Amino acid sequence: MQPDLLNHAHIAQLSRLFRRHSPLVHCMTNDVVQTFTANVLLAAGASPAMVIDAEEAPQFAALADALLINVGTLTRPRAAAMRAAVASANAAGTPWALDPVAVGALTLRSDFCRELVALKPAAIRGNASEILALAGMSAGGRGVDTTDSAAAALPAARALAQQLATVVAVTGEVDYITDGQRTLAAAGGSPLMTKVVGTGCSLSALVAGACALPGDRLLNVAATCGLVKYAGGAAAAGSRGPGSFVAAFLDTLYQEVKA
Amino acid sequence: MQPDLLNHAHIAQLSRLFRRHSPLVHCMTNDVVQTFTANVLLAAGASPAMVIDAEEAPQFAALADALLINVGTLTRPRAAAMRAAVASANAAGTPWALDPVAVGALTLRSDFCRELVALKPAAIRGNASEILALAGMSAGGRGVDTTDSAAAALPAARALAQQLATVVAVTGEVDYITDGQRTLAAAGGSPLMTKVVGTGCSLSALVAGACALPGDRLLNVAATCGLVKYAGGAAAAGSRGPGSFVAAFLDTLYQEVKA
Amino acid sequence: MQPDLLNHAHIAQLSRLFRRHSPLVHCMTNDVVQTFTANVLLAAGASPAMVIDAEEAPQFAALADALLINVGTLTRPRAAAMRAAVASANAAGTPWALDPVAVGALTLRSDFCRELVALKPAAIRGNASEILALAGMSAGGRGVDTTDSAAAALPAARALAQQLATVVAVTGEVDYITDGQRTLAAAGGSPLMTKVVGTGCSLSALVAGACALPGDRLLNVAATCGLVKYAGGAAAAGSRGPGSFVAAFLDTLYQEVKA
Repeated sequence: MQPDLLNHAHIAQLSRLFRRHSPLVHCMTNDVVQTFTANVLLAAGASPAMVIDAEEAPQFAALADALLINVGTLTRPRAAAMRAAVASANAAGTPWALDPVAVGALTLRSDFCRELVALKPAAIRGNASEILALAGMSAGGRGVDTTDSAAAALPAARALAQQLATVVAVTGEVDYITDGQRTLAAAGGSPLMTKVVGTGCSLSALVAGACALPGDRLLNVAATCGLVKYAGGAAAAGSRGPGSFVAAFLDTLYQEVKA
Repeated sequence: MQPDLLNHAHIAQLSRLFRRHSPLVHCMTNDVVQTFTANVLLAAGASPAMVIDAEEAPQFAALADALLINVGTLTRPRAAAMRAAVASANAAGTPWALDPVAVGALTLRSDFCRELVALKPAAIRGNASEILALAGMSAGGRGVDTTDSAAAALPAARALAQQLATVVAVTGEVDYITDGQRTLAAAGGSPLMTKVVGTGCSLSALVAGACALPGDRLLNVAATCGLVKYAGGAAAAGSRGPGSFVAAFLDTLYQEVKA
Repeated sequence: MQPDLLNHAHIAQLSRLFRRHSPLVHCMTNDVVQTFTANVLLAAGASPAMVIDAEEAPQFAALADALLINVGTLTRPRAAAMRAAVASANAAGTPWALDPVAVGALTLRSDFCRELVALKPAAIRGNASEILALAGMSAGGRGVDTTDSAAAALPAARALAQQLATVVAVTGEVDYITDGQRTLAAAGGSPLMTKVVGTGCSLSALVAGACALPGDRLLNVAATCGLVKYAGGAAAAGSRGPGSFVAAFLDTLYQEVKA
């Protein structure tokens, strides 16, 4: 079963959808990528809001169009607030996405991620090590860097997607996006994207937003991965290194993609 | 009562004042905009310091020239530290500014903002929805995006300024700055400023610093709004999108404004 | 005893070592500089990971190649997590570096820094005020800005290094790096580096990583200071202000330094 390669028209359509619907994405994410995540959402046409308190987060999750849970820099108080937000999102019908940063290596976040996946995320976005660890097939990497290729984690991604009735995006040199039945692939991008913190985390925020867009969720999530690959490749082509890449990446995302 | 439009000479003078006095601004702000806020203060000639612990914050608020309280990503422990810092600032005569991010929609921060305004901020900077909510005239927006125009919130801003004997800046396409008697307006800027996180929050940090400068406080706060409009407009003119805007904005602020 | 000026060959060698060994640096640092610190480590060829929870941090400190403790935006829970991480690092033989941000002026961090220095950091990186305060020779500055020159703090740095059997880097217009016996100096850089938040804090993260590299630790730490001076000088030469400096600095660090 070969994955279908995403085509450019889907990316262009997704780019328009983000601008037209401007989903309000409630981000509960790690301390390292907050600014970049907000700027990526803004550039793509979405609306970010970071609300993290255990009382405020459930209030806001019910108002937002989508919720992102990213377990980087997790703490016990933050986990409690995330738990309350997910419960509220589920009650309100707000779709939410999980980014299981570095799951596997560390006990608190690994236990918490196991708890979270049982709460039915609309989508999960991780690298190969994280998806393997989440599916119980690997001990995980040492940190955010993956030691496995995305293709190697595709069976785990499919199993996880089927079991949870969710969309799983396993990202790497090529991204694979699956609902357990169909699998799409997004290629492109640039190695420079691994030299800038937050490219994966901000993709997860866009994936959360994509779950609030009309149309086929699998295709929307895959096209979001494709959009980031496209913007990353275009930005790298005009950059001298990771510093100028950041500006070029946001500038590219800000332009609506031509069909 | 038409607001007076700020002129360029006031902006140039304010730009010089920031460089000459380099106010040390103690920032208690949200997690999303910390870096950008610090860099904006540095570029404009001020000195930022972020101190957030409930024991350290009151110590530092007494040493600093000005204090910023921004309630984005508020938590209960953070609110307790802010409360202690404001008490210390008031005791030491340190002017402090309030940025009531997304007040109205969420209970914890709305209650806390009501408590804070009674503690006599030297200045308040918010968008139309926030100023309306703070004045008890609206339920507020869904997040940091305003759904009202600044002009529509001007009566609320005037009422709030009179009642609290403070300066209120309500910012939007045009900014209005009022002490309840006089009102100044700052025009310019660029829509691109709404596509970068932290332009409003960092303006509030500059407003806090402006409250520590010699001269007329209303004029200094208004000229600070004008400086940011000016830098935003100049930066947007030389940018390809929100990514290159950030660098150009900081570069522009770093240049002393010519009279 | 004149310090020896670091030569360019040492910087080039250090630049290669970072790329070859790519040390995984566990950063427990302040909220303001997280993104920039991660991007500086990535650009230089190291691998950053931010893990801050009191349960996770000691687990991760044992897996990482090096640990950074930076006390900016310290809170009591963060201090408890840092204490646990340092104990774990020491047990596992993971070298760790201390950045005593604004020590001296504030009680909580001053007490905590005194406790930390007794736990044998492999390196300490601070400005003159901080090193003087840490050595008990000054009351410290008002914030992160130093009010003393690095040369004035050199006797304190030497005393501290001897007493703790560590490497102390006191940075300023010229950086001095000492193990209490030998002292090296790194010159260059640009005043623009003081107008960007996190240039010192991210240097401390690189210093932590340098402690995990093979070879002479004093020389490696000194060459790390030299690398940042070099990149700062080169970046400033191609910048119009602090905004464009950030991108140019990361782009420069990303290039391996030619011998």
